[in-house]
Amino acid sequence: MSTPAKAAGLYGPVQADIERVEETLRSLKRVEFPALARMLDHVLGAGGKRIRPALALLAGKFDRYDLDLLVPLAASIELLHSATLVHDDVIDGAATRRGRATANALFANAATVMVGDYMFAHAAELVARTGNIAVIRLFAQTLMSMATGELRQDMSAYSYSQSTLDYFSRIGGKTASLFTTAARGGAMIAGVRDEWVEALASYGENLGMAFQVVDDILDFTGDEAEMGKPVGSDLMQGTLTLPSLLLIERYPVNNPVKRFFAGRQRAESLRRSIEMIRESDILEESYRVAGDFRDRALAALAPLPDNEPRDALMDIADWVMERRS
Amino acid sequence: MSTPAKAAGLYGPVQADIERVEETLRSLKRVEFPALARMLDHVLGAGGKRIRPALALLAGKFDRYDLDLLVPLAASIELLHSATLVHDDVIDGAATRRGRATANALFANAATVMVGDYMFAHAAELVARTGNIAVIRLFAQTLMSMATGELRQDMSAYSYSQSTLDYFSRIGGKTASLFTTAARGGAMIAGVRDEWVEALASYGENLGMAFQVVDDILDFTGDEAEMGKPVGSDLMQGTLTLPSLLLIERYPVNNPVKRFFAGRQRAESLRRSIEMIRESDILEESYRVAGDFRDRALAALAPLPDNEPRDALMDIADWVMERRS
Repeated sequence: MSTPAKAAGLYGPVQADIERVEETLRSLKRVEFPALARMLDHVLGAGGKRIRPALALLAGKFDRYDLDLLVPLAASIELLHSATLVHDDVIDGAATRRGRATANALFANAATVMVGDYMFAHAAELVARTGNIAVIRLFAQTLMSMATGELRQDMSAYSYSQSTLDYFSRIGGKTASLFTTAARGGAMIAGVRDEWVEALASYGENLGMAFQVVDDILDFTGDEAEMGKPVGSDLMQGTLTLPSLLLIERYPVNNPVKRFFAGRQRAESLRRSIEMIRESDILEESYRVAGDFRDRALAALAPLPDNEPRDALMDIADWVMERRS
Repeated sequence: MSTPAKAAGLYGPVQADIERVEETLRSLKRVEFPALARMLDHVLGAGGKRIRPALALLAGKFDRYDLDLLVPLAASIELLHSATLVHDDVIDGAATRRGRATANALFANAATVMVGDYMFAHAAELVARTGNIAVIRLFAQTLMSMATGELRQDMSAYSYSQSTLDYFSRIGGKTASLFTTAARGGAMIAGVRDEWVEALASYGENLGMAFQVVDDILDFTGDEAEMGKPVGSDLMQGTLTLPSLLLIERYPVNNPVKRFFAGRQRAESLRRSIEMIRESDILEESYRVAGDFRDRALAALAPLPDNEPRDALMDIADWVMERRS
């Protein structure tokens, strides 16, 4: 089954409402300043899966489903996500992301930093529209976690003395925190009872972890055309992810990743690292780790009523494991 | 009279309370992640005049002076200001700011972008502590204005087809908007009556304009040691400010700024631009413009009661004109 076909109906009872989130995102591009409009159109037009907005809306389905509050929250979260991608592009100096020229490659570094700031500002403005102080504080704390996670990644670049625990902590801040906030925020806006808020937050966190582990696997297995970036791009940027960490654990001596990080025979060491990861059972083991997170996400849903939104959340957890790009 | 001596007592009835803002800013540096702590210590330790926090506190003196709400607001505004300086440093690639090595010169570009993001996040968290949705939205809108102002500056770099009107619009977004928000936000937190909120906001806006015009004058007249940056540094980065715009207006033909922007005899054209600005009455005229804004700031205070906080606001307006760094 093709991923887009499945994704089309994946969000169940909130599928149609995602269009309202899209409309809010589109409205941001209508600014009076043409240069800014062009840049926003470029960075917001990429058309993602909107998985984070879907989580926020689905969590909001467990009590008072008020789209006038949930749509700004969902759009805010997607915008925050896009803003971090924009700043990541400056950081990585990445030439392409998902097959499109990055904002940074098209515009000057300077302007890109500022467009990211503008998007953060707009995300803050959107979340303020919820009128919910607890949700606004959650949003700010999430941004702090994400920035710290990115800093940790940057600080640990080209260092192989990292454990898989460091990796989990890093992706927890970088990715899972925003998934958690989407689910927790939606639940809070809907006024869901505390036990369910915690259940949905735990689902979001574990789903985010599974999502990022699969992302890091796809960086080694994916098709360059489908992924829009070269195979092994994380390693190329000095970022160790689960597969490369497992490779270092298994072959502590004469390891190609270590050689690559030390700058010895770089092209050959990189090629060999990718080959060893792809030909071993490391990717299987990585999928097992992602599967564990998926299972924990599903288990977290236990206290929730057996209804359509819960079914959709379960489907999303399975889709995260199956996706190919 | 020396500026620091005057500044010491300048903030009148809120002078002592500025220390609580400092304490809040210091507390931000106590993070568990040592690399981040080092960077925050560097960027927050520079010890500014804290003029924006003082405005917020003084505006808060016109009714319910609640430091538990005003201090987070004031700290948030100072932090937002510092975060924009950090991102500006990435943008300008500036080697020094106020005589200290910039964060960007000491740390990698990447980390600097993320430290700025972390500071924005913390600023958002602080403003959320006020529990005042209108103030939170004001804060987000200000960040948008500032980002747009910076973008405009970046887009117009090395272009001399700008009017002084463009300049005013640019510094309005870049500088005056945060002064306005400091005054308006403080007034809103204190629950000051609407007419006074508008009076304080108008004071803040005009003060911010005067402040930036004087800043741009000092870039040409200041002592390199005192200012911590070379004379003519704005022009060097391709930024036209009021003095250079007036020079272009007066000498449309054979103008050294135009030659400099066109890349002809750069060193000599820059030297000549600075010399012509310093030796003409352009700086006097620029001071007249700043003085007009100062007068409008003072006039805006008319509806307010004649009390200690109002006296302090009047003193600040005079000090902004007299300062030498």
